[in-house]
Amino acid sequence: MAFPATPALTTDCVAFDAKGRVLLIRRKNAPHKGSYALPGGFVDVGETVEAACRRELKEETGMEVGALTLIGVYSHPKRDPRGHTCAVAFLGRARKGTPRAGDDAAAAEWVDNWRAEKLAFDHAQILADAQRLLKRRAGKR
Amino acid sequence: MAFPATPALTTDCVAFDAKGRVLLIRRKNAPHKGSYALPGGFVDVGETVEAACRRELKEETGMEVGALTLIGVYSHPKRDPRGHTCAVAFLGRARKGTPRAGDDAAAAEWVDNWRAEKLAFDHAQILADAQRLLKRRAGKR
Repeated sequence: MAFPATPALTTDCVAFDAKGRVLLIRRKNAPHKGSYALPGGFVDVGETVEAACRRELKEETGMEVGALTLIGVYSHPKRDPRGHTCAVAFLGRARKGTPRAGDDAAAAEWVDNWRAEKLAFDHAQILADAQRLLKRRAGKR
Repeated sequence: MAFPATPALTTDCVAFDAKGRVLLIRRKNAPHKGSYALPGGFVDVGETVEAACRRELKEETGMEVGALTLIGVYSHPKRDPRGHTCAVAFLGRARKGTPRAGDDAAAAEWVDNWRAEKLAFDHAQILADAQRLLKRRAGKR
């Protein structure tokens, strides 16, 4: 059966390290070329969103994360100037290693002062929501 | 820009009433024709997942809900026998009114003993996750 057209499904990964730094890439391509962004990309048909999140993280940064926690779903029709995408964002703690840029990433690095950076797309919102989630978790302990 | 092919994006709504009943439809069409299912359907291009959730609920049951809370994202490639879909599921409290079947629904009703029913797709899992979310919320009060 042919499905009706729906927004393109993407995933983004917020990976913190033990020091509270966030793993960001520099975008190699338009839109937002050169900007910091969360690692992520399109979900393949036949792949879960969690698997896509891990695959894109690995491709763009060489890094892996432990358990993934859902942050939110971001589907505003104007969030990507290329067309309507819907991002499923996950939070994970990065395993040890050094980021290494690959695929669509011109750079991949741990960013300390990420609140001061202008991020691509709605990634500042995703990061703010991830922080809220981390704080809620910390409050439970 | 043409996006790569991604799983089709859908949304499902878990609406409880004050008595703990769940709003379910009977599916009019294959797959799972005649089975109980959560109201839901495909997200239109240009529409947020939250708006799609409210639209599908209204079309299939005539009902409206208050604030929506994200339950989870369900993207197993085999969850729909027609092809790969990814469902974003929301929880909401139904506003007053009487369900009235429309669109893809052969019936729309408040179901009390929903744990005993065989539900379409992975909707039993979505309902179980919704219940966990409700319990977590209740524990916070």
